[in-house]
Amino acid sequence: MNSDRLKVVLDEREIPKQWYNIQADMPNPPPPHISSQTFKTATLEDMTALFPKEALMQEYSRERYIDIPAPVIEEYKKYRCTPLIRAKSFEKALGTNCKIFYKYEGGNATGSHKLNTALPQAFYNKNEGIKRITTETGAGQWGTAIAMACSLYGMECVVYMVRVSYQQKPYRKIFMETFGADVYASPSDNTVIGRNYLKENPNHSGSLGIAISEAVEDAVQREDSHYSLGSVLNHVCLHQTVIGLEAKKQFDVFGEYPDIVIGCHGGGSNFSGIANPFLEDKIRFGKKTRVIAVESAACPTLTKGIYSYDYGDSAKIGPIALMYTLGHDYIPSGIHAGGLRYHGASPLVSSLLNDKLIEAQAYSQQEILEMGLTFGKSEGIIPAPESSHAIMSAAYEAKKADEEGVRKTILFNLSGHGYLDLYAYEKLLSKTLENSDFDAKDMDSALKKLPKINA
Amino acid sequence: MNSDRLKVVLDEREIPKQWYNIQADMPNPPPPHISSQTFKTATLEDMTALFPKEALMQEYSRERYIDIPAPVIEEYKKYRCTPLIRAKSFEKALGTNCKIFYKYEGGNATGSHKLNTALPQAFYNKNEGIKRITTETGAGQWGTAIAMACSLYGMECVVYMVRVSYQQKPYRKIFMETFGADVYASPSDNTVIGRNYLKENPNHSGSLGIAISEAVEDAVQREDSHYSLGSVLNHVCLHQTVIGLEAKKQFDVFGEYPDIVIGCHGGGSNFSGIANPFLEDKIRFGKKTRVIAVESAACPTLTKGIYSYDYGDSAKIGPIALMYTLGHDYIPSGIHAGGLRYHGASPLVSSLLNDKLIEAQAYSQQEILEMGLTFGKSEGIIPAPESSHAIMSAAYEAKKADEEGVRKTILFNLSGHGYLDLYAYEKLLSKTLENSDFDAKDMDSALKKLPKINA
Repeated sequence: MNSDRLKVVLDEREIPKQWYNIQADMPNPPPPHISSQTFKTATLEDMTALFPKEALMQEYSRERYIDIPAPVIEEYKKYRCTPLIRAKSFEKALGTNCKIFYKYEGGNATGSHKLNTALPQAFYNKNEGIKRITTETGAGQWGTAIAMACSLYGMECVVYMVRVSYQQKPYRKIFMETFGADVYASPSDNTVIGRNYLKENPNHSGSLGIAISEAVEDAVQREDSHYSLGSVLNHVCLHQTVIGLEAKKQFDVFGEYPDIVIGCHGGGSNFSGIANPFLEDKIRFGKKTRVIAVESAACPTLTKGIYSYDYGDSAKIGPIALMYTLGHDYIPSGIHAGGLRYHGASPLVSSLLNDKLIEAQAYSQQEILEMGLTFGKSEGIIPAPESSHAIMSAAYEAKKADEEGVRKTILFNLSGHGYLDLYAYEKLLSKTLENSDFDAKDMDSALKKLPKINA
Repeated sequence: MNSDRLKVVLDEREIPKQWYNIQADMPNPPPPHISSQTFKTATLEDMTALFPKEALMQEYSRERYIDIPAPVIEEYKKYRCTPLIRAKSFEKALGTNCKIFYKYEGGNATGSHKLNTALPQAFYNKNEGIKRITTETGAGQWGTAIAMACSLYGMECVVYMVRVSYQQKPYRKIFMETFGADVYASPSDNTVIGRNYLKENPNHSGSLGIAISEAVEDAVQREDSHYSLGSVLNHVCLHQTVIGLEAKKQFDVFGEYPDIVIGCHGGGSNFSGIANPFLEDKIRFGKKTRVIAVESAACPTLTKGIYSYDYGDSAKIGPIALMYTLGHDYIPSGIHAGGLRYHGASPLVSSLLNDKLIEAQAYSQQEILEMGLTFGKSEGIIPAPESSHAIMSAAYEAKKADEEGVRKTILFNLSGHGYLDLYAYEKLLSKTLENSDFDAKDMDSALKKLPKINA
């Protein structure tokens, strides 16, 4: 081990030239998406109303490595490679004997890993003549990233922002607007779906599922528009693998290899980004690495949901996928980690979990924010509440290893900073953090509404 | 020129081991500070009530290179070296033929260059047994940096935050609190000075000069406390030279050398950080580099102030220094670039300007925010309003060179990001930006109150 190194930074020339597609290696790649209109395998026509062809090719590809377009690499160069950092001060704060590393994706313009997929998605759309992208955002990280990518490629961007976030995070809204995006609180007046929800309840606080429905409805209305999703889908997870691919090169420089790889899990893209390149080594070359997806105890899709076909959005107009789900009608409580408030999960991650190639853990809002603060005070980076879930798991695994008398090397993805989410920490510090329980009865009733698919 | 490179990142092993002290080379190093109590040269005893001895040695040193303590380098490793980036997209947006580079200091934990001096200052204080640091903050960048540094070294931190910022920037306050700092709106009830100002006006919006006075009064009351300043002083400017020293190494990799070096100027530390290492080449080796300090037209200390001895703080309890000043009683209008709202200037920068080794420019709030947005949309980083002044100057110089038919290489310091200052851009976008005029009459009357010093 090159033990006097605190971090490894790589030159822009070390940015991967290809993404890693885990579908080439996993025992059970996800089946094709199902149309919510026909209940049959979604055709290319069903999907091209929403997504660019290049992204759809990637969605179903079984090629192991897929080229990153040169113009996207040019944009990656503005902020990649991101650093791999040994968390020595955090280790000291924990009093652990383990070695903890983190890949820091928050240093870029938009403050999170989301830019890694926003750039290629915007690029592919632009190439196909699309002039306008619609999307949803919860915590605001995805909305910021796609707003910036659209600005770089000269496209319009329309963001449906979950109303509770829209109200709680005015800075996120302004941030998107500085990149020229139009931001609407969802449910909104813009769509039939939005108006229906507002009729039910004019103060509806919204959900990710509803915002997705609105963005999809908006996109299909117009020839010049496509919809863009910041997580869940296979091609989105694919784009994020630059994270893990870089991390592997950086571990080579450290002369180390992780025993445990950890990512938080909302829709699955950040987790896939850090995990999949290490899973390649596990599946193909027999590495014994443990890989852990960490979710919110208030939205425990992977740990308490079921593996089934379900709708991706609340209004049931987007594709149906085989995944872990709490039911598309399930509305999780209003936790600060807005990015982890999704009823479903990445089909890729779901299949890997079902095949026991990965594990899942869930932690409460209180404990992750406390650990996030411990991390922030020692390492100096206030983490996004989402990322704090991964930090919590790293601390838990380190403690367990200490108790077992073994010294583990642990890697987690610090997917974003929390400078625009400080409200959550303020609540923690002032001891006014809201309860954020999971309601098993709500899930049971939501699970009764799953679509019946014979695939 | 290595022209296919977009940015040069250097390894943590390339972090400078020594700071560059321009006092060794400048024609007229600043004279010693004057005590505001005795009107004579401030003794070491006068100063050790406020500052650690090591910092005071640096304040008056004429050694060209001063060692950076190894434990400080360890902390620098968490975020240094910072990248030097070619602003190709911004060049394209401007349509310029010039090559524009920026050193990006906003990628670290606290979002600005201020951490470069917060770390050594906290370290020196800790080494001398100090348990508590008091300071002021305007925009909040300095307060955040010193709060984090105190947290890393296990010291208490008390921040007097200019009231108008305290109210406008709740996130900055929470940010400091997450690092365990106590933050008070200034003028406050904590000090005699603060109470006097509040007696005059219970809703006093505060100023940097008043907040400094409060922090100084607080520090001298207690044996265990020192005061810490985020700019102006020679040792603070010294610590920032890591910026320019790294930039020179990075230009070597690019195979370039800047014709023009630009930094914004409030108290002078960020400007000195990028400029002084290039000024060494200019003074010692005859390089023809133009070096430009950029200030706010609402607080035009360098372009409209006079070169004279003046008090550093409004209540006249801190040291007196020879510098450009608008008068210690001058209260600049409430611009969003809070870091540029100081009546005085760095004595180092002032002497260099007086000797015509550097130039000064001033720009209005409207034009710098517009240019900041242009930069953000093309490069993807929303700049702090302070840094946008440097960007404006770079754009101005590029345009001028284009008109003259010459191709210049321009470097500016992007000292911080604007993610916690988005309010300023929101005002610009919604066309509700406040006027921010300079009042020459106010300055004339403030200049009548300068201390009479026979030095």
